[in-house]
Amino acid sequence: MKRLRQSKYHYTLSASHKPLLRVNAGETIVVETIDAFGGRIKTEKDLPTPDRIPLDQVNPQSGPIYIEEAEKGDALVIDIVDIVINSKYGVTAIVPDFGGLTRTDYTRLLNDPLLPITRICPIKNNLIQFSNQIFIPVNPMIGTIGVAPESEAIKSLTPGPHGGNMDCPDVCKSNKLMLPIFTKGAFLFLGDVHAAQGDGEISGVGIEVPAECTLKIDVIKEKFIDWPRIESNNYIMTVGSYRPLDDALRIAFAELIFWLEKEYNFDRLEAYQLCSQVAKIRVAQMVDPFYTIIAKFPKKFLSSSS
Amino acid sequence: MKRLRQSKYHYTLSASHKPLLRVNAGETIVVETIDAFGGRIKTEKDLPTPDRIPLDQVNPQSGPIYIEEAEKGDALVIDIVDIVINSKYGVTAIVPDFGGLTRTDYTRLLNDPLLPITRICPIKNNLIQFSNQIFIPVNPMIGTIGVAPESEAIKSLTPGPHGGNMDCPDVCKSNKLMLPIFTKGAFLFLGDVHAAQGDGEISGVGIEVPAECTLKIDVIKEKFIDWPRIESNNYIMTVGSYRPLDDALRIAFAELIFWLEKEYNFDRLEAYQLCSQVAKIRVAQMVDPFYTIIAKFPKKFLSSSS
Amino acid sequence: MKRLRQSKYHYTLSASHKPLLRVNAGETIVVETIDAFGGRIKTEKDLPTPDRIPLDQVNPQSGPIYIEEAEKGDALVIDIVDIVINSKYGVTAIVPDFGGLTRTDYTRLLNDPLLPITRICPIKNNLIQFSNQIFIPVNPMIGTIGVAPESEAIKSLTPGPHGGNMDCPDVCKSNKLMLPIFTKGAFLFLGDVHAAQGDGEISGVGIEVPAECTLKIDVIKEKFIDWPRIESNNYIMTVGSYRPLDDALRIAFAELIFWLEKEYNFDRLEAYQLCSQVAKIRVAQMVDPFYTIIAKFPKKFLSSSS
Amino acid sequence: MKRLRQSKYHYTLSASHKPLLRVNAGETIVVETIDAFGGRIKTEKDLPTPDRIPLDQVNPQSGPIYIEEAEKGDALVIDIVDIVINSKYGVTAIVPDFGGLTRTDYTRLLNDPLLPITRICPIKNNLIQFSNQIFIPVNPMIGTIGVAPESEAIKSLTPGPHGGNMDCPDVCKSNKLMLPIFTKGAFLFLGDVHAAQGDGEISGVGIEVPAECTLKIDVIKEKFIDWPRIESNNYIMTVGSYRPLDDALRIAFAELIFWLEKEYNFDRLEAYQLCSQVAKIRVAQMVDPFYTIIAKFPKKFLSSSS
Repeated sequence: MKRLRQSKYHYTLSASHKPLLRVNAGETIVVETIDAFGGRIKTEKDLPTPDRIPLDQVNPQSGPIYIEEAEKGDALVIDIVDIVINSKYGVTAIVPDFGGLTRTDYTRLLNDPLLPITRICPIKNNLIQFSNQIFIPVNPMIGTIGVAPESEAIKSLTPGPHGGNMDCPDVCKSNKLMLPIFTKGAFLFLGDVHAAQGDGEISGVGIEVPAECTLKIDVIKEKFIDWPRIESNNYIMTVGSYRPLDDALRIAFAELIFWLEKEYNFDRLEAYQLCSQVAKIRVAQMVDPFYTIIAKFPKKFLSSSS
Repeated sequence: MKRLRQSKYHYTLSASHKPLLRVNAGETIVVETIDAFGGRIKTEKDLPTPDRIPLDQVNPQSGPIYIEEAEKGDALVIDIVDIVINSKYGVTAIVPDFGGLTRTDYTRLLNDPLLPITRICPIKNNLIQFSNQIFIPVNPMIGTIGVAPESEAIKSLTPGPHGGNMDCPDVCKSNKLMLPIFTKGAFLFLGDVHAAQGDGEISGVGIEVPAECTLKIDVIKEKFIDWPRIESNNYIMTVGSYRPLDDALRIAFAELIFWLEKEYNFDRLEAYQLCSQVAKIRVAQMVDPFYTIIAKFPKKFLSSSS
Repeated sequence: MKRLRQSKYHYTLSASHKPLLRVNAGETIVVETIDAFGGRIKTEKDLPTPDRIPLDQVNPQSGPIYIEEAEKGDALVIDIVDIVINSKYGVTAIVPDFGGLTRTDYTRLLNDPLLPITRICPIKNNLIQFSNQIFIPVNPMIGTIGVAPESEAIKSLTPGPHGGNMDCPDVCKSNKLMLPIFTKGAFLFLGDVHAAQGDGEISGVGIEVPAECTLKIDVIKEKFIDWPRIESNNYIMTVGSYRPLDDALRIAFAELIFWLEKEYNFDRLEAYQLCSQVAKIRVAQMVDPFYTIIAKFPKKFLSSSS
Repeated sequence: MKRLRQSKYHYTLSASHKPLLRVNAGETIVVETIDAFGGRIKTEKDLPTPDRIPLDQVNPQSGPIYIEEAEKGDALVIDIVDIVINSKYGVTAIVPDFGGLTRTDYTRLLNDPLLPITRICPIKNNLIQFSNQIFIPVNPMIGTIGVAPESEAIKSLTPGPHGGNMDCPDVCKSNKLMLPIFTKGAFLFLGDVHAAQGDGEISGVGIEVPAECTLKIDVIKEKFIDWPRIESNNYIMTVGSYRPLDDALRIAFAELIFWLEKEYNFDRLEAYQLCSQVAKIRVAQMVDPFYTIIAKFPKKFLSSSS
């Protein structure tokens, strides 16, 4: 099984970076990732300030991985076989001017910023020790995973049609992620594993850990999708990322409804009406430059009425 | 047990309406509600157009119910004992210029409106027949429930600090709703029961039904809350309603964090960081004049670290 | 000339308040207004804190004025004949949790609030003395003016289709304001005069003054408009109020384009394209519960191409 | 005087493109630009559909121009000496799924798209003939002008801290634009000249023309600015681009207030309060992937009170 371990990481997703691993459709690989702070926070005295974590060195990405069969207009299918945490602790923090309940670079205000705080959380027996009394079950997910956009180079902090920093707990073991392919080779990047994360990732930071991600990579030829999709045992899901949340939600649902129409034989407005009764929504995060919403349709209702 | 049945309904929540039922704290009552279309849609030929459903006659409310002990600054506690659907069918519809994926009166565009559609869904054996093949489990909830605001009269279509049209599936049997009280007597209104509803209520319409709601009413004296709260077996929840979704979400989480700080002994920023790992979010609806978000904190983590 | 002077003011716009003046279409009247702080701030030591300015006593309104001919579906036309400032100074302030660049009750954050500041600005010779060196020309405008909504009672702090707290510098001497009429008698309210105000009213407060407003009142029968309109010598203007600004802007432009189509013989999409080349936009305010945008069309282009 | 004429244009702003012109600080140059449709629309039968105007070939940029003295942390100063229109007509259009009053790729809805329309407007004697009766004065502006971001490659359709597609009528003859410099050489790009444009560019399209832009290029060493600035005879201006408009406006005003504090000796909150009385706001555009707001401070008030 091929393994990707690298010493230098990327802060943009772009096809201009040199592939570090080349794989064929059907292969299973292991990718080592470091945490979103680049391993620079080791104790609670290491505060997440701009001098320690320069703005252009947030969220380091492993990759790019070049997939031989991948061409523009195909879909990349990633089975998440396993995510193994590679540390005895996770890091969470208050990063001033980052998070859902603070002024940020995007919602500029005259109030004083929050002060930085670092919290180191030991991980043992599948439990994260958040505090003396509070233990959170480990539930690892890949925070950032995406392909190179067609012509742009996009910061690893930003989610979009290419995937990227979606911070979605459904990108977890046993689930399948499907990404659009914009360039020959696809150029897959990943990083930013969280040992656990709540909906919205409201403080801006999960339980950040290094990890080993085992992924089975596949390509569906000539399957054009506009935005990422996820499948679990119980749901088909679409991902929309934009600002405000309203527009992220609209993207996710438009994609979900067109998917139901195209591949599951629903009438478009019937799908719209049915979603209104049975869909689930996850607010994945409301902290990154764009926000991410997951629209979920229960597989048990996947039989059209026509 | 007192029962409220009325022939004329209200389209605003206001203390200027005459109480139709007076109850004491501790009483359990039954309130009959009609559906959000006021029973005006009976067949699939009855389309939800402005001539059939005038804009000022949407979402009829039962009440007001006057609670003797209630005074400004107290909290109203409503145990939802039961919700019994009072019809053999439910109604859902495409209402032109209403819903999450269409131009509306609030997001005015030059695209043509969607065309109206009515769908009548038979309800039998706790199943809603959405189409020939698709059956949805009955899961009744009270779409609109709220008190009179202090000085305003607010449309029954609009949610806010007073509750109102929150369209939240957690306002269901066995859960407890807590509302701020702004005026002597509280003036409780309710209506708009849905036999089922997905997150976001994306088409703008659930499975609309008339119902009988059994509620145990209580008052906590001198307990000032700013926004509605909900409790289930597993979660404490706060409700935020505004536009865009971002600001509704911020309200819900600020309320949740202050609740954790005030009543559960958390440090404020500790609560913020913990929510980032364990909170759940429900997008209740993104279709009403304000949107509604529920921030949920799992009760199992309700023990502070200090 | 009839004059309205009153001792008790209103904090909601509603047809449930007793008319204090009855006028006929065509009459010119003088209305005395007090400042938005209700005259409670007289020195720079009087800070705008909730104990001094209770939340339910912000923005006192004179009126209601009952217009005899006014009926639902008519339009109310108000010629602003004059606005005379009734004080030797104006008040501006930093109100904590209010304003465009701070956390507010609508954008709830964990940052600390701004501290309250009061600034008293002497007014002399048509100049407002903002500081030792800075003098601002007096340019009075009526910040809040509106009619009773059909069934609601709306806080005087909130703008909407009924007008209300639009905080628009174009509501000034020599301009004409047109409001929809929702109820018999119209029930006109006004207050909140500013001696001067910038676009956006970014700190949330203009140069707040008491004033005497001379208004010529008229009614156009059976002229249904959805939102307020303003006319100056050079522009026809429409007003949209909502959140976020995007949706306020869409309302204003949809109203402007439909106006051009209906009354000035433009094709709808031609008007859309022409607005893209010649329209002006004013952000009236981004601080009230809803934000207000003015879309302006230069009168010199008021001749359709067809 | 150096002149830049090129045959191949760029659709991203990035330092990875090869400089086509190298200039020294202090030089004046002429840059030839083609119109935003790449000259592909010549008659009213040439509709702006995706087959004619592929999504990745919208808004072609001239450049990059390498400025020898420019280094990260400096400011680039561009005096707009002249903008000469290089065509006898301008093009405007309805582009389906693009514009402020339609569903778009960012506000995904189920309503049908608008239909494409092309309008060719002859330009003669400094007048644009919009229709038989309507003539619009020529008022040329550079719609897109920006530098390379530090690590990203950003689509020419998107505005940001680097400038880019701001679509701001204040980027016109005699005004001065200041841009942050993120990379050695700055890498200046420009294009998208409009013969005229209204506030908001509401249909998404101005009067699009090819042009010759005469620019005097300068560098201020070690002057770090976060966002673009503009100066005219009467105003200092800051540019904020994001979504929703609210956040673009907050960026522009935070930048303006910090500018007043840092360079004009104002106290921060004094500047905030003064802006509330005298600032002007231009909504440059509400149609691109991010929206652009200009906050303007009148130079006549540029003397602090301290």
